[in-house]
Amino acid sequence: MHLWPDSEERSLSGKRILVTGATGFLGAHLVARLVEVGSHVVALIRPASNLWRIQHILDRVEIVPCDLSHPETANLESSLSDVQVVYHLAAAGVDQSYQDAASIMQTNVMGTLRLLQLARTRKVERFVYCGSCSEYGPGTRLSEDSLPAPTSEYGASKSAAWMLARTFFQRYGLPVVSLRPFNAYGPLEAANKLIPHLIIKAIENSKMELTGGEQTRDFVFVDDVVGAFLAAAVIPDAVGGTFNVCTGLATSIKEVASAIVELTGSAVQPLFGAVPYRDTEIWTLSGDPGRARHSLGWSARTSLRNGLDKTMRWFREHRSRYPMYRAS
Amino acid sequence: MHLWPDSEERSLSGKRILVTGATGFLGAHLVARLVEVGSHVVALIRPASNLWRIQHILDRVEIVPCDLSHPETANLESSLSDVQVVYHLAAAGVDQSYQDAASIMQTNVMGTLRLLQLARTRKVERFVYCGSCSEYGPGTRLSEDSLPAPTSEYGASKSAAWMLARTFFQRYGLPVVSLRPFNAYGPLEAANKLIPHLIIKAIENSKMELTGGEQTRDFVFVDDVVGAFLAAAVIPDAVGGTFNVCTGLATSIKEVASAIVELTGSAVQPLFGAVPYRDTEIWTLSGDPGRARHSLGWSARTSLRNGLDKTMRWFREHRSRYPMYRAS
Repeated sequence: MHLWPDSEERSLSGKRILVTGATGFLGAHLVARLVEVGSHVVALIRPASNLWRIQHILDRVEIVPCDLSHPETANLESSLSDVQVVYHLAAAGVDQSYQDAASIMQTNVMGTLRLLQLARTRKVERFVYCGSCSEYGPGTRLSEDSLPAPTSEYGASKSAAWMLARTFFQRYGLPVVSLRPFNAYGPLEAANKLIPHLIIKAIENSKMELTGGEQTRDFVFVDDVVGAFLAAAVIPDAVGGTFNVCTGLATSIKEVASAIVELTGSAVQPLFGAVPYRDTEIWTLSGDPGRARHSLGWSARTSLRNGLDKTMRWFREHRSRYPMYRAS
Repeated sequence: MHLWPDSEERSLSGKRILVTGATGFLGAHLVARLVEVGSHVVALIRPASNLWRIQHILDRVEIVPCDLSHPETANLESSLSDVQVVYHLAAAGVDQSYQDAASIMQTNVMGTLRLLQLARTRKVERFVYCGSCSEYGPGTRLSEDSLPAPTSEYGASKSAAWMLARTFFQRYGLPVVSLRPFNAYGPLEAANKLIPHLIIKAIENSKMELTGGEQTRDFVFVDDVVGAFLAAAVIPDAVGGTFNVCTGLATSIKEVASAIVELTGSAVQPLFGAVPYRDTEIWTLSGDPGRARHSLGWSARTSLRNGLDKTMRWFREHRSRYPMYRAS
């Protein structure tokens, strides 16, 4: 997929890079790319984690067992030895079915604090904090200057950790860059997420029951997201900044489902309205990509149609390898 | 000082009201006023707290021992029985000499989360969150719509807890009101704070060594702050809002010191420049009082001169009773 490393990738080659959340959807893609460009990746991984997403590169990654919900562990401290860049993607509560607010806050806020403190002591060159579009409330082309208005404890925890990271930049000059990915999608995304769910249904011609599908989201292909993460670690002007990782386009669930059915050539007809909307439904959520374009020199290159097509092809080819993609 | 209860005070009469941070400077003034207007006050107090500020009203307050840094305690849960209004003022790290960031975050963020969860379960009528001007970075006439930009872990913790409270309003409809007091001053303020420190020096004619004193702050008299807290608990339109509690006026430390020397008739000459500025000095910090005036119908009534005069008289008359005001 990548021809030659560009300058950002070259400047990460040979660096010792800590990645938290390395077994997650974004984390696994990031780690794979870093390994590919020649970084030495130290992956912080909870002892209970399933390594399926990074199984194929495990021999090229240094694994440090550590649970950020118990951040006082000595492993965390030693994992930062000689680390030049920290990518902090670990978070509890990404899966909306997990609702233990105290545990979410403990991991996401207290864990981030500890990591920031260690990164400061170790004088890392760059600390990239992975935030989330859930730090915002609903809205269209939301700018990074909008007031946080999370509608879930998870969103509040991500925003609280963002604020801590920002404080470490302001108070101690820690070179923090904060990213806010919107709806990332692509290969290896969890089976219960919208796009994998729809692709699997379409491929298997099984009943596709949906809400009315009028909600809109800003979908961004995972390879593009990884590109933003690389830029965030190397662009000098990025330090201290917060950047949306988004396309700026709001696409309805309905459009996504229809495109997937068309791309797969499936005979299935999406049943819009078969499932009720959530009480807490967010109707519109898209970001303004202007600041990332201006300061990181980054913008999403993959159209939704192209990204869905790549994702669909990947699922067709690879999903049989992964038990988590078996139809339920 | 108060002639007749106004309508806000009348509507709090007879209510069961939980106050956290009741032994603090603002908390003690709030509790005293609530007792005066006939509320039934339940005060959450750490077992180790010094009760000096509320000693004179202890017989009219229900004390519940509880440390919010261990929020799982059963006392916290039972303290909320039949409570109609919660005033949440407890926080670690108010004193800048306390710098244990993990403990500050634990108390201020995890403790607030637990309290919000219980308040939601108990269906309280109003939850007043006491934030802080330290949630902002430096600035003049800062509006509540400014992006938080704390320069300390304490400020970050207050802002993180504010975000949680906001989320509980947005997600669960908990009737939260957030206040952001600026530089409150008055009787009972800690002896190491600027205004008590200067008043005691002036009264005792002892050497008054200061920085250059060019920093400006928005000083607001504690009786006025309490007025904002009462309004926040009763005004229907306040729910879901965040309100600066400030005057809008930025006054330099130099002006404050000179006014105190003049009001006390002290012979002492403030030595400006005798102490170096802090590395992390915030040069300007004042708020926009417009929203509180518009939505709470509240504005500060006490001029700085008048407030300093009242404070000075109180210190002259009462400080001998309190060991904490003995000159060091």
